[in-house]
Amino acid sequence: MIQFRPSLYTDFYELTMAQGFYLENRHLKTASFDYFFRKQPFNGGYTLFAGLETFLSAIEEYEFSKQDLDFLESNGFQKEFLNYLKTFQFKGNIIAANEGEIVFPNEPILRVEGNILECQLVETLLLNFINFESLIATKASRIRNAAGDRTLLDFGLRRSQGLGGLQASRAAIIGGFDGSSNVSAGQLFDIPIGGTMAHLWIQSFEKELDAFRAYSKHYPDKSTLLVDTYDTLKSGVPNAIIVAKELEENGHKLEAIRLDSGDLAYFSKKARLMLDQAGLNYVRIAASNQLDEYVIKSLLDQKAPIDIFGVGTKLVTAYDYPALDGVYKLSSIDGKPSMKLSENIEKNTLPALKNITRFYSEDGSFYADGISLAEEDNFDTIQHPYLSEKKTNISKFTASPLLILQMANGKRITSPKSIDEIKTFSSDLLSKLNPEYKRFDNPHMFKVGISPALMSLRNKLIKSHKH
Amino acid sequence: MIQFRPSLYTDFYELTMAQGFYLENRHLKTASFDYFFRKQPFNGGYTLFAGLETFLSAIEEYEFSKQDLDFLESNGFQKEFLNYLKTFQFKGNIIAANEGEIVFPNEPILRVEGNILECQLVETLLLNFINFESLIATKASRIRNAAGDRTLLDFGLRRSQGLGGLQASRAAIIGGFDGSSNVSAGQLFDIPIGGTMAHLWIQSFEKELDAFRAYSKHYPDKSTLLVDTYDTLKSGVPNAIIVAKELEENGHKLEAIRLDSGDLAYFSKKARLMLDQAGLNYVRIAASNQLDEYVIKSLLDQKAPIDIFGVGTKLVTAYDYPALDGVYKLSSIDGKPSMKLSENIEKNTLPALKNITRFYSEDGSFYADGISLAEEDNFDTIQHPYLSEKKTNISKFTASPLLILQMANGKRITSPKSIDEIKTFSSDLLSKLNPEYKRFDNPHMFKVGISPALMSLRNKLIKSHKH
Repeated sequence: MIQFRPSLYTDFYELTMAQGFYLENRHLKTASFDYFFRKQPFNGGYTLFAGLETFLSAIEEYEFSKQDLDFLESNGFQKEFLNYLKTFQFKGNIIAANEGEIVFPNEPILRVEGNILECQLVETLLLNFINFESLIATKASRIRNAAGDRTLLDFGLRRSQGLGGLQASRAAIIGGFDGSSNVSAGQLFDIPIGGTMAHLWIQSFEKELDAFRAYSKHYPDKSTLLVDTYDTLKSGVPNAIIVAKELEENGHKLEAIRLDSGDLAYFSKKARLMLDQAGLNYVRIAASNQLDEYVIKSLLDQKAPIDIFGVGTKLVTAYDYPALDGVYKLSSIDGKPSMKLSENIEKNTLPALKNITRFYSEDGSFYADGISLAEEDNFDTIQHPYLSEKKTNISKFTASPLLILQMANGKRITSPKSIDEIKTFSSDLLSKLNPEYKRFDNPHMFKVGISPALMSLRNKLIKSHKH
Repeated sequence: MIQFRPSLYTDFYELTMAQGFYLENRHLKTASFDYFFRKQPFNGGYTLFAGLETFLSAIEEYEFSKQDLDFLESNGFQKEFLNYLKTFQFKGNIIAANEGEIVFPNEPILRVEGNILECQLVETLLLNFINFESLIATKASRIRNAAGDRTLLDFGLRRSQGLGGLQASRAAIIGGFDGSSNVSAGQLFDIPIGGTMAHLWIQSFEKELDAFRAYSKHYPDKSTLLVDTYDTLKSGVPNAIIVAKELEENGHKLEAIRLDSGDLAYFSKKARLMLDQAGLNYVRIAASNQLDEYVIKSLLDQKAPIDIFGVGTKLVTAYDYPALDGVYKLSSIDGKPSMKLSENIEKNTLPALKNITRFYSEDGSFYADGISLAEEDNFDTIQHPYLSEKKTNISKFTASPLLILQMANGKRITSPKSIDEIKTFSSDLLSKLNPEYKRFDNPHMFKVGISPALMSLRNKLIKSHKH
């Protein structure tokens, strides 16, 4: 059976390099690494940072079992190094934005500090979890933006990328979904689960009406009847109305009907009218079928009276942008700042330990982020990372730091956040991000600058590399 | 910690419907369901069927633990039904093509038979595993097609969709990859693992040459040196040549160098020349950086002397087509054929228990597939599913059946296949599929017809539905 083991959930070269560091006796060199991504997913204007809690939990259970060590031995690893791994635990520090934070390209939103071996061993796990969960949380948040306050349900498990479906459902909630059909994710992450019924239920009865009656008998206040199996307006909706009336006689209320095919704008309007005319204005209309933020926006622009959207494939696979390009780069070693140069100036990394500060406009909305050296007390201006003439004076803005010590010496410092807390945190932040950063077409690019001291250190290192 | 539990790895409605069937005492009705997909992924001409072995293993371990039942109880499920689940095991039959088979749209490549409750409970798990692993195996096979007999390595774990990375690496091997960097997948599925080195290794030393020497000291016959950290042609390749010569003096051989940025066609040609001039024609050249089948084809069209391709994001997420649209539909109930009608004729399902027969041309290549009723002994013609005038006489073709009883009454009948067996099986089949079905642009569509008896049953059911 497929099992997740944090320690072996890694690229092979992390282990061969770790063994190399160990055998060279370089494994205790101190180092720091930054996680950041370079491009906004979905051509959007912001990203939600997610996957931190799942990552930290995995790090807390990070250990090499006898079985793991045997497997590594059979792949050529040396006894001496395996002995070291036997008692290995991650003892480093993790400094990161809180999960659910709104973040932007090139910001070092998570930093790992420790000895070089431990920092490097966790790379693949970190990238895998943070890249994917941030991607899906962001997609979910875009869909939430389109849907307003209507109910959003994740129905994606059957089309998600294998076991990635577990994390997709978690991230969907963080991004603003109300619930998921994914029962395992409900169990693992304490997220609300729910669902409707499949065509199968209806096909397994002789008549649609019998199928509706049988289901609502067992779920008298929790039935969503699927009305498109035979003929939505001639059979499905009329039969649902019959059952709703029968439920009323027994003091119950039909929860909703679901449309899963055809023109959802047309059918929802017709169905709403039929329900209302039958005095059933409390019965909600759910819709599903290849939905994403664009389709939902279009449906609502057409005034489709849909109350509940079930979203699957496009959400859980981030269909139009299926991978966030996050990377993990060395920023200091032996206490000295380090950076990776690239032919492409925009791919130069930022050296040293850094802070991120968020500046607020007078109305409380987000104005800009500044990246500075961790040792810097304060700075008056931030500047464009590459165009040094572009400067902004930020001395008069209210400011707050984004990075928090989450784990010190391998021990969790902050208390683990529940999904509900993360979701609420994220949704509060989004209310402070102006709409122009959230629109789907050509969103405004949020200002992220670097401090003069960081700029000067970076330029010094670039020069010294050229010698 | 994230754990995979087959029984709860499902959409919520599968469980509410199962409880409904149980409480209605309809749960012992016999039923059969077909898995099929409707569209070729990647606009390609074939699909590799994968995920069967992982699915069957999960079914063999399918059970509800006390913890699972408690969780369901807290979500409103009834004692009586939970008691039933307590001893629940899947006792049905699974009839399917062997894993690695070449399959086409609308073919019922996997059938589940049993009571309606058990058939339906496994739906989400089945769709999730088969859809995703088939998708990635197909993508991998396209990349293999482009790469010829060069070495293909999966480097995708850091960008895969969360834990889906485990299955992606397995499917990559089935589709023709030689190895993976994914250590957990190596442990779980017994696939070859390997890797190179990261820029970090080089950055952690003062000098590139020291970094190369240190690594090759510990891996004297297994070093792939990453040459693009500072300057590929002025520093990386010359330093690799120095180290290769030093290794030679001690009876060892440098395995390869790796290019990870820049124009891979240009750099590989220059590097090959430099290596050859140094007498190092045995040192191979590996390349990575956003590769897929199209980039690899272009590189080889340009005669780039690359021996090893490391492929990541585009492979493990199936970036250009991130979800296979496979579905699972009722085909019979209580021994009677069933089908789902749709407004869109091409979405009508095929009723009853069915076989798939593959017909061979005289040269041994695949000619066509025929779908027939399971009870049919033989048939002379197959016809287009919707255009009945399009018929093909297949009486003179060699034929073999595609579907095999894999599990009977919940017990595995066939012996589990190793990844190596599946990979070889698939690669043998691909050699019998003519190149016009495998090309990337406008591939020829493989002929899949249905038998006259199946056509006639389908038409009869469509008519009876209309009354």
